[in-house]
Amino acid sequence: MGRVYNFSAGPAMLPVEVLEEAQADMLDYKGSGQSVMEMSHRSKIFDNIIKEAEADFRKLVGVPDNYSVLFLQGGGSQQFAAVPLNLYKNRKAGYINTGNWANKARQEAARFGNAVELASSKDKNYTYIPDCSDLPITDDMDYVYICQNNTIYGTRYPELPNTKGRELVSDVSSMFLSEPLDVTKYGVVYGGVQKNVGPAGVVIDVIRKDLIRDDVCPETPTMLKWKTQDDKDSLYNTPNCWGIYICGLVFKWLLKQGGLGAMKERNEHKAAILYDYLDQSKLFHPTVQPPYRSLMNVPFVTGDKEMDAKFVAEAAEHGLVNVKGHRTVGGMRASIYNAMPEEGVKALVEFMDKFEKENA
Amino acid sequence: MGRVYNFSAGPAMLPVEVLEEAQADMLDYKGSGQSVMEMSHRSKIFDNIIKEAEADFRKLVGVPDNYSVLFLQGGGSQQFAAVPLNLYKNRKAGYINTGNWANKARQEAARFGNAVELASSKDKNYTYIPDCSDLPITDDMDYVYICQNNTIYGTRYPELPNTKGRELVSDVSSMFLSEPLDVTKYGVVYGGVQKNVGPAGVVIDVIRKDLIRDDVCPETPTMLKWKTQDDKDSLYNTPNCWGIYICGLVFKWLLKQGGLGAMKERNEHKAAILYDYLDQSKLFHPTVQPPYRSLMNVPFVTGDKEMDAKFVAEAAEHGLVNVKGHRTVGGMRASIYNAMPEEGVKALVEFMDKFEKENA
Repeated sequence: MGRVYNFSAGPAMLPVEVLEEAQADMLDYKGSGQSVMEMSHRSKIFDNIIKEAEADFRKLVGVPDNYSVLFLQGGGSQQFAAVPLNLYKNRKAGYINTGNWANKARQEAARFGNAVELASSKDKNYTYIPDCSDLPITDDMDYVYICQNNTIYGTRYPELPNTKGRELVSDVSSMFLSEPLDVTKYGVVYGGVQKNVGPAGVVIDVIRKDLIRDDVCPETPTMLKWKTQDDKDSLYNTPNCWGIYICGLVFKWLLKQGGLGAMKERNEHKAAILYDYLDQSKLFHPTVQPPYRSLMNVPFVTGDKEMDAKFVAEAAEHGLVNVKGHRTVGGMRASIYNAMPEEGVKALVEFMDKFEKENA
Repeated sequence: MGRVYNFSAGPAMLPVEVLEEAQADMLDYKGSGQSVMEMSHRSKIFDNIIKEAEADFRKLVGVPDNYSVLFLQGGGSQQFAAVPLNLYKNRKAGYINTGNWANKARQEAARFGNAVELASSKDKNYTYIPDCSDLPITDDMDYVYICQNNTIYGTRYPELPNTKGRELVSDVSSMFLSEPLDVTKYGVVYGGVQKNVGPAGVVIDVIRKDLIRDDVCPETPTMLKWKTQDDKDSLYNTPNCWGIYICGLVFKWLLKQGGLGAMKERNEHKAAILYDYLDQSKLFHPTVQPPYRSLMNVPFVTGDKEMDAKFVAEAAEHGLVNVKGHRTVGGMRASIYNAMPEEGVKALVEFMDKFEKENA
């Protein structure tokens, strides 16, 4: 059926131009006679790839010199352990529970210290972001942790929490590079790339340099210690070279699109097309209230499981794939990341409209 | 200059047929309308990819049902921590020091318990494998650990050590799938794939199921606990999907070549071409004695640093790249993994012969 519009929550669509470039260079990258998959990570040519990827990322985001950028393995789930192991001094931190991933991060931190739940939106199945203006944060907390965009529930922090002077740590996986990111507001901000940035198997950490310490928790495995990789510019051992290469191509694509400001405009426009339709639909209902809506992950339901299933199946037949919602929310979810073109969102809305009329 | 012969120690050459298939399917894998890099790891289509990769690997190696096969991230370096954290009961293990990687593995294990050096070949710069027939192994050791092929020094165990009933754990990264592997002789055998099997960012662990425990060391991060991934068939979180896909293509290629027995024959033949030349050369000298020679990594020196550098530079000009040796050995190293064709080895030997005559 040709290329589909893939609404997967991740891994998800990549820009066609990026795929085409990777395809063209597959057996012979820039006249090197090698695939990027075959290159020594210690070679000059790969060193150029990773250095250029980092430089383009820094340019795109505007990362100040006092922050390190690390390309790591193991995904967000591994950072759930790395964050407390690297940041704990008092072995105490505050976590805001806005869903599955924030909660898993807290549970992992609780294995190594006191990870306090500061607030939660569990009472309404995580359909909103709690008020974070005056949380019970204490001076002995080493950091405050958030998951800034919640892939499963389709919520996004309308503003950053008041951390009362504690370091802010944020998992931005499902909104990574979808809008401008003011790194200076965070001690650590990280994201798995497999939603908005690249193929699975790379997580990018942006860490203020003074938080990269040698005196981490003694039980920290060498590979989870940020200093290990920071000292070696992400080349302590062989990294996911191919993944970093593809991320680098995506960074160049984003720069060509006009950068993160332009992406935000485009993403707001795309999201509005879908939310506007949902807000007037009599069949489909969005699950999240306007102030907390994600620009990236849009869950919606009909309230009728059989109707949901029928919609998901028929959508797939029309080349609109992976719109099934997460089991904890039910219904549907359309993830409309950077690489999802406006035409894809329009095609989805047109199909929903047609389906609504047919099933009125 | 077209495709080069790449003698890198890893990442290294991949079969051209594999690269061509990945290239052809880059924007539309088997009519799915998606790149493998864009697929949800929870989708039916990716599930087929990982299941087929595991089934082909099991067939290729002959992995018995009482062993699990896990596709993990973080490379061998992360397994250096995972091995003791998952296997320690008495927090004591024996390590045989045959070079850099074996030693790094022991140092990491020593951070979590008593990792005893049972034998070492450091006295002769790791150019041989110690006698392992009667090592000072005690009953309270949880396992005995080896690095079975030493990438840097070009040595390989001529036979497995007598572990006196203790579990054998082996890192086979740089000989992975280059010859038959009798999994039943090991408790755990693992390898980073980036030398002989696939692109960097995947490590494959083969673990006897009774060694996959819930009562691991309490400080084990969830992502380093083998049971976490074993319970979810390597899909606890998003894996390196692309890397697993390429490994799967390599497994199919290896099966088509006749399997690991056929690969061993081919690799012995390739290695003999190079060692036979080295053993009669007056300019180039192999650094490892015959009983301990690796089939995969062949270090050699002229004894003259300037001559070495001249050779490395001229070889590269002739499309024979990455023959520079590791700094701890000096000279040259030719890594001749599965995907290095016989023609590549012959081209190297012809060039060496010509160089020797010109520089006599």
